[in-house]
Formats: sequence, C-alpha cells, structure tokens
Amino acid sequence: MNNSTQSKLILVPAPLDFGCEAQAPITDVLPLATIQTASRITHWIAENAKSCRAVIKRIGEVQSLTLPLQQHSITELPRQVHKKGDHAGAFDAKPFLQAAIKQALDNGAQEIGLISEAGMPAVADPGSSIVRAAHALGLTVQPLVGPSSLLLALAASGQNGQSFAFVGYLPIDAAERIQRIRALEALAKKTGQTQLFIEVPHRNSALWQALLSSLQSNTYLSVASGLSLPNAQIRSATVADWKHRAAPDAALPCVMAIGV
Amino acid sequence: MNNSTQSKLILVPAPLDFGCEAQAPITDVLPLATIQTASRITHWIAENAKSCRAVIKRIGEVQSLTLPLQQHSITELPRQVHKKGDHAGAFDAKPFLQAAIKQALDNGAQEIGLISEAGMPAVADPGSSIVRAAHALGLTVQPLVGPSSLLLALAASGQNGQSFAFVGYLPIDAAERIQRIRALEALAKKTGQTQLFIEVPHRNSALWQALLSSLQSNTYLSVASGLSLPNAQIRSATVADWKHRAAPDAALPCVMAIGV
Repeated sequence: MNNSTQSKLILVPAPLDFGCEAQAPITDVLPLATIQTASRITHWIAENAKSCRAVIKRIGEVQSLTLPLQQHSITELPRQVHKKGDHAGAFDAKPFLQAAIKQALDNGAQEIGLISEAGMPAVADPGSSIVRAAHALGLTVQPLVGPSSLLLALAASGQNGQSFAFVGYLPIDAAERIQRIRALEALAKKTGQTQLFIEVPHRNSALWQALLSSLQSNTYLSVASGLSLPNAQIRSATVADWKHRAAPDAALPCVMAIGV
Repeated sequence: MNNSTQSKLILVPAPLDFGCEAQAPITDVLPLATIQTASRITHWIAENAKSCRAVIKRIGEVQSLTLPLQQHSITELPRQVHKKGDHAGAFDAKPFLQAAIKQALDNGAQEIGLISEAGMPAVADPGSSIVRAAHALGLTVQPLVGPSSLLLALAASGQNGQSFAFVGYLPIDAAERIQRIRALEALAKKTGQTQLFIEVPHRNSALWQALLSSLQSNTYLSVASGLSLPNAQIRSATVADWKHRAAPDAALPCVMAIGV
C-alpha cells in the first residue's frame, strides 16, 4: 500500500509584503478559507524557512494554529531547485517529497504545505518540481486562493489579458537585454500577446532606460510595483507618452509588460 | 480641470462558482480588504449585469453596502468588446468610461468597479479596454486580490511557472485545432514555456481526444476544473500516462496546460 496517496500537497499563497516595513493584516490579502486551511498545516516545504515562519506567525494571529509555530516542521526547497530551477537537467523531486511525506505521516499529518516568499508558490517562484512529484506520487494537490503580483499587474495594465506570456527576468547583459526586448516587442506586435517580465530593484533603472530607448513609440509599456499594498503604483502608457513622464519608482520589485 | 483624475477604477474579482448550484460563502474566496472595498462601490462596469448583481448581493450578506443593491448603477461592457474583444480594430473605450465617470460623479461617487462573471476582470475575460482607457484618462487603477482559475491551475499543474503563456481558446475546426496543438507543443519543447488554454464543457471531449492523439508521449498535459470549489479536479501527467487513465470530467469548464 502506498501511504503517500492519502497525503495532500496544499499550495499556500503568501502576502506580497515580504521584506516590507509596514505589513497589513493577513486577512486583507488572504481569504478566510485559505487562512483556515493553512492554520491546520504543520509540515511545510518552503522557498525560505524564515519567511515561512513569518507567514505562519501571522496566520496564527488571526486563527488558532493546530500546533505552536515552534513545533512546525519546515524544510527548504532542495538546493538544486534554488540554483538551477525546478526542471533543469534530470531533477526529480520525488525522493525529496517522499521524505517529507514520511516525516509528516510519522507525526500523524497528511497535509504538507508548499509556500514561497511572496505570492503563489510555483508561479514566478520555485516549487513546481514539488507539485509535479506530488502528481506522480498520487497526492491530491490543492491550490489556495491568494495574491499574485503577476495577475494583479496584468489585470491593471490595460493590456491584452486574453493572450499573455510571463517570461521571467530579461538578460542582464546590455546588448542581450536589448535584443530580448526587441524580440518580445516583435512577438507582441505579431501575435497580440502581452509579454510580462519582472526585475529586481537595483536593475530597474537600467532596464527602464533600455525599454525606452529600444521599443517603438506606439508600443504599450506598463509597470507595476507594491501590488496589494498601500503604496501600489500601476501605470500604463505608450512609449511615446512615457518619454514625457517620470520614470517609475525604482526602489521596489517591478512587474512590467509590453504589448500592442 | 479634468474631474476624471479624481476617479478610480477598481478591479473586483468574482468567485469562480458562477453558474454552479452550490456556492461557498464569499469570504472563503475573497479577502476582507477586497470585500470591504467592493462594499463601498455603487457604480459598476460589468461583463454581465445579472452576475454582477449576484456578487454584490453576496458581498452585502457579509458587509454592509454603501447603497442598497437596487440603487447600484450597473453598465454592461460595450457590445463591441463582447463581440470582437477589447483591442480589435480601433476600439477606444474612453467615451464609454467617461460617461460612466460622469454618471458616478453626478451621484457623488468617485469609484467605479469593473467586474467579470468569474475571476479577475480583464484576465481571460473582457475588460482590458476599460482599464486602458482609465490609464489614458488619468484614473488610478486598483486591482483587488481574488481568485483566478488560470493562476490556480498553473500553480497546481507542476509545470513550469517561471515561463508560461495563456493562449485562450484553441480553434474549433478539427484540423486547425490539431495544427495549433502541435505548434504549442513545439513552442513548449523549444522554449520550456508552459502553454495554458481553456475550453467550454461541450467541447472538452473533442479537445481531449485531439490532445491525446496529437501530442508526443513524453509531453506533460494538465487539466484542472472546479478550482477553488469542493469538487476541484487537478491532474497532471505525461501523455503516455494519460492514455492509461480516465479522461477528465467533461462537465465543467477546464483550464489545460501542455509543457515539458
């Protein structure tokens, strides 16, 4: 008998204020069913153990936890996932997940939570190899409703949301970055598919300059930061219009989108 | 002075149980801040007025509405958006939005809600032309946190969530559909980008047969339905494995994904 088929992998979204000074109550961004389900989980696979503990603590402030935080088992994602991504090479997360399942079952727990630092695990964040392994081992996979910066940025961009792609980070090398920007623009113009990408704060300015200098003037360019937070900034305009406006605040992680 | 710059367009996510017999409390899927903000809105632009009223009613059951439902102003999206999409031809939603802003301001309201039948407005649903017009008119655009079937399906698929595309519906014509399936598979294999698409229940079986007969055996194929609902089904396997399994329940709208 395969015990693992009794187990369940629950995808727990985290608030988007990771690393921010001011944090809203977790009830502002997570629905009640998400909070209640998460409050029962005692075994976790996390992108980052520290941020996972912070989320559990915030959940515990509004809903009694099954076990005190100190007794939760938190295992960080395998080193290989952090370094190379979920699906690089022949990485198989099954042995890792099987060990987590066994440990949970030994403690009488059938539910394992998967959580990343911010937003939905396995979307623009690591974790999909764990989800794939869960399917392969016959676990039920349950995604809980919560915030996603990509989704909020796309909805608020005014760009085509009926055909879109998320392409991750653009190249760091200046020449390669411009080449990639032009390829994404060409694809958007040819197919109408909105192209979303993300950037870390210290490269926002360089990326912004590259976008304004290499995109065509009638291309739409959207930028969003602080999504779901009080300091949210979401702006969308043609490149021609952007050239007469202030650049977006470069101090925050951004979701950007180009399209027609 | 442009009055519209005082106004705000608020993107209100709707529960995913549109048209379902059993409905969970709205607090299960919408966070408190979403419910509180939505309860203040009295002027709406909706994909469907009837489903908009149903959501307002459910919000009113858990949070006092600023105005009774009967006094809300609900305007359906322009006919052109329903028929041709948001960005077809030279459609400009500014006059439509300006009329809605004027009506709201005449009633002392600065907030306008945009809502679709299920999930996030303007994502896999109409409404992005209204958002674009809001940016052009200088409105603040505020997206509220809520459920999205695409996002839940992607997270739970175990497929690459760090590069993915949503391509809408596949062609209805059998030959064109197979051609499109093969093109999406080739793209996924070449770039590693997960390809998501949706289908309506009465075409699920035909699409499923086309997928199993035309995809390569080592391609991953995921199917999700009933997301965020008690009867959720989320399964992911290689095409080779799917050939030994029962086809997914064809009675519900599905999100499907192919990838490597």
